[in-house]
Amino acid sequence: MRPPVIWADCTREELREALPESLVVLPIGATEQHGPHLATGTDAAIVEAICRFAVVRAADSARMVLAPCLHFGVSEHHLPFGGTLSLSPETAIGVLTDLARSIVECGGRRLVIVNGHGGNRGVAQVAAAKIASAYDMTVSVIHYWELIADAGGTPIPGHAGEFETAMLFALRPEFVRQRRPRTPPEESGVDGAEMHEAAAWRRIDGYTDDPTRATHERGTEWLDECLGALAGRLIELANRP
Amino acid sequence: MRPPVIWADCTREELREALPESLVVLPIGATEQHGPHLATGTDAAIVEAICRFAVVRAADSARMVLAPCLHFGVSEHHLPFGGTLSLSPETAIGVLTDLARSIVECGGRRLVIVNGHGGNRGVAQVAAAKIASAYDMTVSVIHYWELIADAGGTPIPGHAGEFETAMLFALRPEFVRQRRPRTPPEESGVDGAEMHEAAAWRRIDGYTDDPTRATHERGTEWLDECLGALAGRLIELANRP
Amino acid sequence: MRPPVIWADCTREELREALPESLVVLPIGATEQHGPHLATGTDAAIVEAICRFAVVRAADSARMVLAPCLHFGVSEHHLPFGGTLSLSPETAIGVLTDLARSIVECGGRRLVIVNGHGGNRGVAQVAAAKIASAYDMTVSVIHYWELIADAGGTPIPGHAGEFETAMLFALRPEFVRQRRPRTPPEESGVDGAEMHEAAAWRRIDGYTDDPTRATHERGTEWLDECLGALAGRLIELANRP
Amino acid sequence: MRPPVIWADCTREELREALPESLVVLPIGATEQHGPHLATGTDAAIVEAICRFAVVRAADSARMVLAPCLHFGVSEHHLPFGGTLSLSPETAIGVLTDLARSIVECGGRRLVIVNGHGGNRGVAQVAAAKIASAYDMTVSVIHYWELIADAGGTPIPGHAGEFETAMLFALRPEFVRQRRPRTPPEESGVDGAEMHEAAAWRRIDGYTDDPTRATHERGTEWLDECLGALAGRLIELANRP
Amino acid sequence: MRPPVIWADCTREELREALPESLVVLPIGATEQHGPHLATGTDAAIVEAICRFAVVRAADSARMVLAPCLHFGVSEHHLPFGGTLSLSPETAIGVLTDLARSIVECGGRRLVIVNGHGGNRGVAQVAAAKIASAYDMTVSVIHYWELIADAGGTPIPGHAGEFETAMLFALRPEFVRQRRPRTPPEESGVDGAEMHEAAAWRRIDGYTDDPTRATHERGTEWLDECLGALAGRLIELANRP
Amino acid sequence: MRPPVIWADCTREELREALPESLVVLPIGATEQHGPHLATGTDAAIVEAICRFAVVRAADSARMVLAPCLHFGVSEHHLPFGGTLSLSPETAIGVLTDLARSIVECGGRRLVIVNGHGGNRGVAQVAAAKIASAYDMTVSVIHYWELIADAGGTPIPGHAGEFETAMLFALRPEFVRQRRPRTPPEESGVDGAEMHEAAAWRRIDGYTDDPTRATHERGTEWLDECLGALAGRLIELANRP
Repeated sequence: MRPPVIWADCTREELREALPESLVVLPIGATEQHGPHLATGTDAAIVEAICRFAVVRAADSARMVLAPCLHFGVSEHHLPFGGTLSLSPETAIGVLTDLARSIVECGGRRLVIVNGHGGNRGVAQVAAAKIASAYDMTVSVIHYWELIADAGGTPIPGHAGEFETAMLFALRPEFVRQRRPRTPPEESGVDGAEMHEAAAWRRIDGYTDDPTRATHERGTEWLDECLGALAGRLIELANRP
Repeated sequence: MRPPVIWADCTREELREALPESLVVLPIGATEQHGPHLATGTDAAIVEAICRFAVVRAADSARMVLAPCLHFGVSEHHLPFGGTLSLSPETAIGVLTDLARSIVECGGRRLVIVNGHGGNRGVAQVAAAKIASAYDMTVSVIHYWELIADAGGTPIPGHAGEFETAMLFALRPEFVRQRRPRTPPEESGVDGAEMHEAAAWRRIDGYTDDPTRATHERGTEWLDECLGALAGRLIELANRP
Repeated sequence: MRPPVIWADCTREELREALPESLVVLPIGATEQHGPHLATGTDAAIVEAICRFAVVRAADSARMVLAPCLHFGVSEHHLPFGGTLSLSPETAIGVLTDLARSIVECGGRRLVIVNGHGGNRGVAQVAAAKIASAYDMTVSVIHYWELIADAGGTPIPGHAGEFETAMLFALRPEFVRQRRPRTPPEESGVDGAEMHEAAAWRRIDGYTDDPTRATHERGTEWLDECLGALAGRLIELANRP
Repeated sequence: MRPPVIWADCTREELREALPESLVVLPIGATEQHGPHLATGTDAAIVEAICRFAVVRAADSARMVLAPCLHFGVSEHHLPFGGTLSLSPETAIGVLTDLARSIVECGGRRLVIVNGHGGNRGVAQVAAAKIASAYDMTVSVIHYWELIADAGGTPIPGHAGEFETAMLFALRPEFVRQRRPRTPPEESGVDGAEMHEAAAWRRIDGYTDDPTRATHERGTEWLDECLGALAGRLIELANRP
Repeated sequence: MRPPVIWADCTREELREALPESLVVLPIGATEQHGPHLATGTDAAIVEAICRFAVVRAADSARMVLAPCLHFGVSEHHLPFGGTLSLSPETAIGVLTDLARSIVECGGRRLVIVNGHGGNRGVAQVAAAKIASAYDMTVSVIHYWELIADAGGTPIPGHAGEFETAMLFALRPEFVRQRRPRTPPEESGVDGAEMHEAAAWRRIDGYTDDPTRATHERGTEWLDECLGALAGRLIELANRP
Repeated sequence: MRPPVIWADCTREELREALPESLVVLPIGATEQHGPHLATGTDAAIVEAICRFAVVRAADSARMVLAPCLHFGVSEHHLPFGGTLSLSPETAIGVLTDLARSIVECGGRRLVIVNGHGGNRGVAQVAAAKIASAYDMTVSVIHYWELIADAGGTPIPGHAGEFETAMLFALRPEFVRQRRPRTPPEESGVDGAEMHEAAAWRRIDGYTDDPTRATHERGTEWLDECLGALAGRLIELANRP
């Protein structure tokens, strides 16, 4: 079994050899409030772990390089709750663009951004499009939770609700504190409209559904589904002509 | 029947009265290549028209103000084909943020960005999130083509393919030139991965599916579905507590 | 008679053919308070109309392409009066630079910015100079009201006073509401000094001279003078070696 | 006779006392090619000198503070000729805005930018408008050469031609080198259109009219006219209610 | 013994309690070429480890919160050697400013940036000064290698030479590959002048002194000296009135 | 004796000849509060003078061009004391980068920034590194006070204390006002930590040590030491292969 290539663990010579033929996998997370019951490192911890595991699984089937995780994301809407380290969207786009430019200058031609935080959707899309045009590089974006095929009614990913709590049971159980059952407040969205509203976050105290529904078993299943799907997608992306 | 409020047609006094209680509707489009058979103004023309029609339909049920359409979008990937006027993503975010700031300073509290161009997805999301946090304003984003429930296999929106051609038959038939049938090249995406690749656009000559499949009848149906759905969503957004 | 080339109405092929030999005409306006008696779309409506008419008149004598109008300008000083959608100067420079860059990438070599709003003077000059240096493109700026040779004492353009009101009578009479006669407050400027002062705008309630002096007849004369002069200038610019 | 207040020569206490009641005079110049016969410091030297002289003349009639001269301007179009130190327009706007913000934070309420270089027109206007809106400060812009009432056909200011050469004879004769007579190339402008074209500068070798026409006598007259007019304008601006 | 507070491992409630009374410790590193013999993650690995260890040592004596490490730094000069992920200085300043702003909004009042990469010196100083002025926050910067009192002639830190190699022997021996002895090229600097020159880096193949001089024993001593000194400084900073 | 080359006094032809073989010397200062006893122009006056003198001394031994002094620096922390004109760090980096770019475009290959103000340390380092990478130019930074070998306990440079007061006695005695003796407040720093704290500046009323200790004699000695050392460093930098 071929070992995976971890950028930070390699020398420049090893990377100069690997990059032109490899898919660079860049995990991006967040450090932000996750209600009173989850650690603020939740998003970064999950996305870093699943990328690492998926790259290991995929190492025999395709060439990949795993870049260091970006632990900070766009979390302006979580700042009022405390415990949050947020990048402005302009800075986040700058970081992603600078990293992609670096990869190109070092010989890389393919990049996938694996995103672990909903607030990063826009900047990931903006940066990917910009990079692809500016450097004639192939850039993909995967929001890891979209790899879950059917969650049986659980909001995916929600925020600090059943899904993320369960994922942490499987990956970082020490990140889960005492949970309180909650009846999620009635927040009727408008179908087909993506709404941004600070007051809405305040009404739900910064997290979505009921974290006490999360079980270790469910977390293991979801994690396994994510890993299988992610490894498959990475292999497909790496092996495209 | 109450007439709709068109920003540009009103005086400052009329707007000072209307804005605090109204939903501001901001259409954003693009001016960019649409293959050899459609006019470059396609996206802006469609989104401006459907916003105008929807605001008229909704005028009796809720208070709205229709802002002028932004005719330029993020189209860097279309520049190599000619005929394209593109904003960099940083500029586009600046425009949307400036307009939202203006609306707030003039008394508005609710904004919906109705988007007519796929390349604007990221900047619309980034700007909406930023505005919502910075000004405690409710900002929604609607990508108009997502209002089509089921297109029976036609790519929605595609780019300069059957859907947009049909929409133009219904709205601006003079924008459609001689079409050539095409067998769309096999472009297998990777499920769950949003890919950005300049070479992919070159391989398909800058447009997606077969425009000769478009009919005026289909265009009318799709337009009607869009208008009904959009008017409904706008009313819901305007009347939220 | 040769029809004019309207960018948004053309396909990429038509523009690829036209741009290298044509002068691109870009109208820029504003959406901003125009006192209690004129619609906020005044500047954009006037500049868009006169560009369209002038391009039609000139179409037989020179090759031109009319770009879509930018409906938003730098109007920070009008925000306190309501009804105003303003771009920051940095954003406005970004928009103009991005559009010029697009034109160059699509084969254009000559651009004239036709400006309809005093607050855009600086950004138009900055952008034109920057573009000319960066892309070796010929960029001109015309402030349309400077084409009026002699207004017999009426402030040209003023703001929402006799001149603009008269122009709207000729172009968009529905933009004019009930006018009140005013004795313009004594605002002695300092000769040769361009002054920027928020308090001065407040002292005159956001508009300059007496709009009740405006007549339809005067508007028609001024409009005709503008159109003749503008068409002439565009032909000169387009036909320079 | 009251001595003028020179910012750099004063202590903070002296400035804290003077600023709230004074007009701050900020000269901005350029360091750029001035043909083969004039020193590159021409614009900065002229504007700094006339501001200093005018402030001395005006010191008895009004309170003023003379800020240090900005020796660098927007001269991108002169870079190809050598000897040029240029700020990008974004940087120049940043400098002017930062200085104005500093003045406000230190108690100043009135600012006049006295400009000595045509390439600074746009950034001066942009910055003045922005500052006036952002800080409710009164900001004026004077382009010093516009104070010359009638130059009898000599281009004012031109670039490195008769006018500037004559001004240097009066102010800094050591800046003038061996001059060659020239018949200015026929450069027909378009009336009412401000043109920016790198090729035009190349065609005239980077300077406009015939510098051999300049005389010391004419220079002294022009300088005197400038100083009288500038001192008058500064007094008017400083003493406005 | 009180456990240290690791930001990412804590909930928002825990951080809301801790931040107002704690010193936030932010390690910043780099991911960049370190010659043919060290892994590219060297700087980030060292600074993250010594911060973690020092915070543990200091936990009983003062309140601290350890923020996630920034794995990317300003390494533009290393890009030509491969294996480098660099932020532009503007982006890096943006990241540091955004993180400080977040800390302030979440209740923190004291920050120390512990820097592990020479290329970050300027941005750390710029950001610290800016943050201190903008948010009235106390911000300190420690370049960890300056805590070594006397290295007996070894360049500290050098780049990928004896010092860093020895530190890795003590912290991450798997980051050290086969080393080749080298006689460092004669690079005479100019005393008191900090020089930046791309050619100089090329002349020394991207690293400074002889890595074969490094020993595990020396690494342990240096590490211990760093940790003791850093813990002491952190306690002093945390306990200032 | 060869005369020094002063940029502003030369024509473009003279500079086109000189720049490729010369070291460009760029002095950067500040205009900011220097306590109740020194003029605000202190830093700019000192650094401009010592650069001018050093370039004259060195003119026979090496080719140099002296650029105009930047009179404004990063002084955000001095704004609350009055009398301060500050650039934001972003603007200051922009100025330095633009000037370096201009020098490169005009044929220069070597630049030394001679800094006269502590608050400019970071931006000088950032800009120098950025320029060196972007333009393959050799850029050095000298903080002039670091050329003083041993000050016998006097803080060097301090701020508006003994050292700067003495330097002004030697260079610009008219900049020194009535001084009051002071016992410097006890401000214990933390060894090895660079601290930024607005409150610390307030506690010491904006200046450091006792200015009444300054003598003209000491100033002359320090000035002489600076000039000798600076001239030597400039010659070394100019004559490197």
